[in-house]
Amino acid sequence: MSNTTRTVNVGLIGLGTVGGGVARVIARHHDEYLRAYGIDLRLAKASALEPERAAELGIAPEAFTTDWHEVVADPAVDIVIELIGGEHPATEIFESAIAAGKHVVSANKALLGRRIDYLGDLAAKAGVQIRCEAAAGGGIPIVNALEHALVANGMLTIAGILNGTTNYILTRMTNEGLGYEEVLADAQRLGYAEADPTADVDGFDAASKVAILSSIAFHTRVTTDDVYMQGIRNISAADIEQARQMGYAIKLLGIARMTPQGIDARVHPTMIPANHMLASVSGAMNAVFAVGDAVGETMFYGAGAGAFPTASAVVGDVLELANGIASGLDLGPEPEPFPRTVPIRPIDDLETRYYIRLSVADRAGALAPVVAAFAQAGISISGINQLESDGSNTCSVVFLTHTACERDVQAVCAALEALDEVERVASVIRIEDADAWSEGAEKND
Amino acid sequence: MSNTTRTVNVGLIGLGTVGGGVARVIARHHDEYLRAYGIDLRLAKASALEPERAAELGIAPEAFTTDWHEVVADPAVDIVIELIGGEHPATEIFESAIAAGKHVVSANKALLGRRIDYLGDLAAKAGVQIRCEAAAGGGIPIVNALEHALVANGMLTIAGILNGTTNYILTRMTNEGLGYEEVLADAQRLGYAEADPTADVDGFDAASKVAILSSIAFHTRVTTDDVYMQGIRNISAADIEQARQMGYAIKLLGIARMTPQGIDARVHPTMIPANHMLASVSGAMNAVFAVGDAVGETMFYGAGAGAFPTASAVVGDVLELANGIASGLDLGPEPEPFPRTVPIRPIDDLETRYYIRLSVADRAGALAPVVAAFAQAGISISGINQLESDGSNTCSVVFLTHTACERDVQAVCAALEALDEVERVASVIRIEDADAWSEGAEKND
Repeated sequence: MSNTTRTVNVGLIGLGTVGGGVARVIARHHDEYLRAYGIDLRLAKASALEPERAAELGIAPEAFTTDWHEVVADPAVDIVIELIGGEHPATEIFESAIAAGKHVVSANKALLGRRIDYLGDLAAKAGVQIRCEAAAGGGIPIVNALEHALVANGMLTIAGILNGTTNYILTRMTNEGLGYEEVLADAQRLGYAEADPTADVDGFDAASKVAILSSIAFHTRVTTDDVYMQGIRNISAADIEQARQMGYAIKLLGIARMTPQGIDARVHPTMIPANHMLASVSGAMNAVFAVGDAVGETMFYGAGAGAFPTASAVVGDVLELANGIASGLDLGPEPEPFPRTVPIRPIDDLETRYYIRLSVADRAGALAPVVAAFAQAGISISGINQLESDGSNTCSVVFLTHTACERDVQAVCAALEALDEVERVASVIRIEDADAWSEGAEKND
Repeated sequence: MSNTTRTVNVGLIGLGTVGGGVARVIARHHDEYLRAYGIDLRLAKASALEPERAAELGIAPEAFTTDWHEVVADPAVDIVIELIGGEHPATEIFESAIAAGKHVVSANKALLGRRIDYLGDLAAKAGVQIRCEAAAGGGIPIVNALEHALVANGMLTIAGILNGTTNYILTRMTNEGLGYEEVLADAQRLGYAEADPTADVDGFDAASKVAILSSIAFHTRVTTDDVYMQGIRNISAADIEQARQMGYAIKLLGIARMTPQGIDARVHPTMIPANHMLASVSGAMNAVFAVGDAVGETMFYGAGAGAFPTASAVVGDVLELANGIASGLDLGPEPEPFPRTVPIRPIDDLETRYYIRLSVADRAGALAPVVAAFAQAGISISGINQLESDGSNTCSVVFLTHTACERDVQAVCAALEALDEVERVASVIRIEDADAWSEGAEKND
């Protein structure tokens, strides 16, 4: 039992999956927080559009409202938890909570990915804090690590599996040899994918997390719009099987690297060696590499979504703030959260190896102009594999390149599409050199 | 650039591998810390037994001494970094630094594993902090996660690969089919193992980390002596090959679980499924699962040793303290760091599955009394595999058990050793049920 205890009141806006998890975690752990940290954490006020949720969660009628303004305005509330998602009225909730001098805890990756600089400035001027552990990686404690344990490092790379839905889909495609559409439909039926899966499968969700994590890691402003984005809709069972045969796994990775030319920030399907740690992250789990110049490679693994894992991150943030409030500290903001601006390196400047799968006419001499197109673009080929023809008049041919520039690869793809011999460029998948994530790290003896 | 900057002076005792890394990280990142955090971090005083190390590390002669007392006594020093290891004079360094009202940062797992309660009490009474991220898992930010991001959870399990030397040896035995002695000798030659490898290969180092991590995770006092310890000296190439054929990997795991009967804390060679995340942690890398009732499974991966990874953790702790000092906060201790005492569950009460390899006389009827001994001990066998005889008059027979109690397994091993038909009990390896690490976690819908 701590010597001193102090009551800290939170206001909770949004009682959906995560909001419900937060209400339950606070209720179930109240006595433990009191004993271990001396914090009497109370849910003073909650709001949602459906009053029946309050009863379901055991929230007293007098502590419930359908109007979020009442939560922010409640003088008892020290910390506002925003869990409604989306841009509006979430932006207004942040603005009015900050204006009322209240700290804000949020899991809103879409909003923070787009406007972390605006909201961060607002909070800094008002002398309050925004905490968003849950917005990037759900329950995985990566934000806290970047803000605390890893601060001695110049961070070099943030890279990993940041979206559970797409990892679930790719894992099942890999393990069961199924096609994308088939697995997506099943994932929707089982609740792993939304009815409208766009934000997940097109990479927007992962890109939001890349923006948040790279802003924090690199002390600069990166927004979702700065992140190159390509989803998994075009990944086929054939690509996954080809990758497997070559010793690779295909994962949707979010990658942000600090390079001499600026920040390289992107989300796309990526081939990584089958024995890489990220290749063994399966199902809806997430994992993020954080590479620092002193620490080298670290990786954080856990549930990127779900009521209780996300609530763990939200309530962790709340307790951090509550601990400061309970200690009587005047919790200042982090000093100027984004003090420098590093340029974003255009995706055209990316240099990596590529896997390119073409549908080519199945006739003698068809490959000659294809190979010539690569040569003309200055792209060096490291391997060619012609897949067995399916009996139609086209066949699949896979080209692997040596390190090439994205700009040249885009050019060659356009040139290839224009050839009579090429029906279409079926897949372009980047092969990531994960060793490069540690470029610039100190060498241990 | 931060609005306000403040100078924080550290005193560094010990300029070995880690101490040298710390001196270099502080020197190389000085300007970055100033810009990002407003902290002008200076190495005010350093001590080591070899004066030439100071010159090597660019430490000015007036900032160097061979007497650690001078570092602690220097009025400019705000934070003392103890990096000499061992119990003495490290204990005296802690005592005198704390008595002088100075915070202490340390990587000394042997000392903290044994005396974290005594030193923690001392610091609490003096109103200073001890920080020890580097003492448990080197660069992996697991201590910070337990103290901050995961505080909303009741922690259920800490389990993982906590010693790089043994993981390096087991990895090479697995990948190259080599024997223990052969790989150990090579590891010593390459600097992965010490000339006296006892602390690593017998599990003491991992047990120290289990003690530190479970003390923090479970808010109770666990010392190294509370941790059951068995090393890897008896693991043979035959065991590893058998494990592989059954779909398992053998790793030296440190495990601490909060059970209804108390804390189950142990270090021993462990069979885990080959597709478990820990099975893919290879070479000298470390990885720790931290399982909480809300967050479920999380895992932290990184370098458990080495100059710069360990320095990352030490300087991270220093910056956390420095940030508090720079903000003018009166940094109090954590409130009573070990407020409750949970009993330690005796290893005899462990219930798990077992792999038992016997050398048995290679003659008809030899197995009958062996099987009878298991039956008499009430241990149910799930599989028997007689390995091909090597032409001698004994052969290896592997028994797999259903869940059994350690007490009964020890009894049966004694009974087996007494049989004429059994030359010896060659290996007893526990098969860990990693799913049990999440027992008690909330269920997500």
